[in-house]
Amino acid sequence: MHLHREPKAHTEISTQRIEAFSDGIFSIAITLLVLEIKVPEFPEGGNGLAAKLLSLWPSYFGYVFSFVMIGIHWANHHYIFKLYERSDHNFLMLNIFYLMCISFLPFPTAVLARYIEIVAKQETVAVFYAFGLFLPAFAWLLMWLYASHNHRLLHPRLDANFKRHLTRRYFLTNLFYLGAITLSFWHGLVGLGLCVGLTLLYILPTRPPVYNKPDE
Amino acid sequence: MHLHREPKAHTEISTQRIEAFSDGIFSIAITLLVLEIKVPEFPEGGNGLAAKLLSLWPSYFGYVFSFVMIGIHWANHHYIFKLYERSDHNFLMLNIFYLMCISFLPFPTAVLARYIEIVAKQETVAVFYAFGLFLPAFAWLLMWLYASHNHRLLHPRLDANFKRHLTRRYFLTNLFYLGAITLSFWHGLVGLGLCVGLTLLYILPTRPPVYNKPDE
Amino acid sequence: MHLHREPKAHTEISTQRIEAFSDGIFSIAITLLVLEIKVPEFPEGGNGLAAKLLSLWPSYFGYVFSFVMIGIHWANHHYIFKLYERSDHNFLMLNIFYLMCISFLPFPTAVLARYIEIVAKQETVAVFYAFGLFLPAFAWLLMWLYASHNHRLLHPRLDANFKRHLTRRYFLTNLFYLGAITLSFWHGLVGLGLCVGLTLLYILPTRPPVYNKPDE
Amino acid sequence: MHLHREPKAHTEISTQRIEAFSDGIFSIAITLLVLEIKVPEFPEGGNGLAAKLLSLWPSYFGYVFSFVMIGIHWANHHYIFKLYERSDHNFLMLNIFYLMCISFLPFPTAVLARYIEIVAKQETVAVFYAFGLFLPAFAWLLMWLYASHNHRLLHPRLDANFKRHLTRRYFLTNLFYLGAITLSFWHGLVGLGLCVGLTLLYILPTRPPVYNKPDE
Repeated sequence: MHLHREPKAHTEISTQRIEAFSDGIFSIAITLLVLEIKVPEFPEGGNGLAAKLLSLWPSYFGYVFSFVMIGIHWANHHYIFKLYERSDHNFLMLNIFYLMCISFLPFPTAVLARYIEIVAKQETVAVFYAFGLFLPAFAWLLMWLYASHNHRLLHPRLDANFKRHLTRRYFLTNLFYLGAITLSFWHGLVGLGLCVGLTLLYILPTRPPVYNKPDE
Repeated sequence: MHLHREPKAHTEISTQRIEAFSDGIFSIAITLLVLEIKVPEFPEGGNGLAAKLLSLWPSYFGYVFSFVMIGIHWANHHYIFKLYERSDHNFLMLNIFYLMCISFLPFPTAVLARYIEIVAKQETVAVFYAFGLFLPAFAWLLMWLYASHNHRLLHPRLDANFKRHLTRRYFLTNLFYLGAITLSFWHGLVGLGLCVGLTLLYILPTRPPVYNKPDE
Repeated sequence: MHLHREPKAHTEISTQRIEAFSDGIFSIAITLLVLEIKVPEFPEGGNGLAAKLLSLWPSYFGYVFSFVMIGIHWANHHYIFKLYERSDHNFLMLNIFYLMCISFLPFPTAVLARYIEIVAKQETVAVFYAFGLFLPAFAWLLMWLYASHNHRLLHPRLDANFKRHLTRRYFLTNLFYLGAITLSFWHGLVGLGLCVGLTLLYILPTRPPVYNKPDE
Repeated sequence: MHLHREPKAHTEISTQRIEAFSDGIFSIAITLLVLEIKVPEFPEGGNGLAAKLLSLWPSYFGYVFSFVMIGIHWANHHYIFKLYERSDHNFLMLNIFYLMCISFLPFPTAVLARYIEIVAKQETVAVFYAFGLFLPAFAWLLMWLYASHNHRLLHPRLDANFKRHLTRRYFLTNLFYLGAITLSFWHGLVGLGLCVGLTLLYILPTRPPVYNKPDE
């Protein structure tokens, strides 16, 4: 029995470890967002610091919105990791890909904050930002499909209908973000509006998971 | 009994998880403050590096003061989370809002450090900084009101008088910061002085919580 | 017996502590990579933001590649720490040296992103980047040689053949990176290609460790 | 007995919590050091990137040296926290002051890297850097004096001679850094040399603590 436990303990990185590492990255990516808000500079004699500070609203918007997005991803990550019974090497690599997409978010946020006010650039900016939101949603879907395929890494008694519900949900999210990207090519602010709406939707609580009875 | 525990374990993020995530953000926000102190630049032949380094006192002041502020918020966060028995989705979202306000602090600190010496801008700078301090205090109050309303998330035996004591305390803190903002419109340095005074007050230890006896 | 445990508990930093501290540094170094992608600047009237964003491909490549590298190092760090039974002062210092090499990676990545497109500088850039990848691999080898020498810090029943397998593997990695550095002197892109190939190889799962039976 | 445990659990932040928070700050401060190494810029047509990269040696030196310093502080923090039985409010505040000094280190390091090569500024730079090293050593001494006074927070059976040994050691460290500051006024590089020497000394293992027998 002691022998049986050893190889298991030595080859798998536990889901707790992955969660702890992911939490670190979530909390750093979310905190780095503030570095993208730059102190306004202007001639020493100039007036209107208050106006300058108010005119940074795209930076504030980007900060708040990306913060909420990463916060929701963090909450979701915990929610879903409770459904995972174990991990494997491929899943670990997919999780690193997912974290790469999360950590990237401060960059599209900075681009948004810098150029959203310039009307001629709103479409480009919105497409890029919506794409930045799509990336982690896509990586998330990949992780879920890998983990849930044949109940590979899931709790064995997780209800099949509930599994299908999540699969549908994650596919829909990806479709919505693709829709937001497409819309942004045509009208930047409308595309961004769709992204904001989607996010507000995700602030709502998620459905608690359903398990079969042990004797089934 | 086993069945009963599962849904609970799967829908709630434990207060420990929230604390760990929050700790990560506290420690990153507090450490990022040093990035706002910029190495002074001047012509290679110029003298007076020592004078330049000393003239950075607004940066040092901002660093020390915001560090202490975030440190106090961290200590407070731990203090209060010991009173919380459980968490729910809304509370989680309020905590993310609170962390967003904490993570924002390096920006008003940078604005303060950059412009406090320019007399014509002291009022704007002080209003902005006091507002930056007010935001997490306000989010804190919201969290407390939500958690303590009808003892929603609190330990069931936490004394009602002690609860009222904390509610009063957090309302007062908010009033004081609003006062500091108002004062800053009229005289920047006086407003900042009030902020510093308030903070020194918070360095004092907080009252230990009071519990009713189990048989009550 | 109580007396016997005390000095042990007080002089050694447990491998768990070292892992937790290392995890923090891995997750920060990996997240800081995004700060090296700079928002493109150009005259307000200018067009072509989309083209500018696409032309940042060296930054994206550097981000993705260094992210994967640090991610693999993290996974490896966990894999190997499960083989370590205990720690000592020298090992702690070697681990700090290793973390210093990991944390340095954002800098060669930034140099790569900034200059790889300038043909005349590709050799310098590739040598520097390959050297940046070599450093943590070298520190890793030192740690392993120290820990595995006479089974100093290893689990006592870890198979000798498996130990030799890892020693060979880490020596080979170092040789390959030295090869990539040499190749880069002659042709930068070929050298980088070798680095990418090596990394893809490391994405493959590692062999599970082999233990002798307890009665041997 | 249940009642007795509650107030204790609710008023004190455990030493483990303080260690975890401190670890976060150590690992972030140590990783931020790399951000102070700036990618060299020069005209696109210019040659000599290799020479430019080598000429960054003051940045590399600052990175390595400050990394080792923070690493040693981290190891020391764990070493000493094993001697502490409990914590109190003042100790918590002293620890925040200590962490403030640790987090500040990237700034003197950046000043050192930027100006150490300019001979006329070496004294200023060395004084400032040595002062940056002195600050956490001083905060450390304060923490120790507070915690060890009348065995306030120490393990009750920690040997009195061992306590005196540590007090002497920490006083000496402070004296040496004050010496390095003084020396730097007269000759910058000699002062820096003393700092490096001191640090090499601290890389040596520390003496294991001595406890009295339980029956004493």
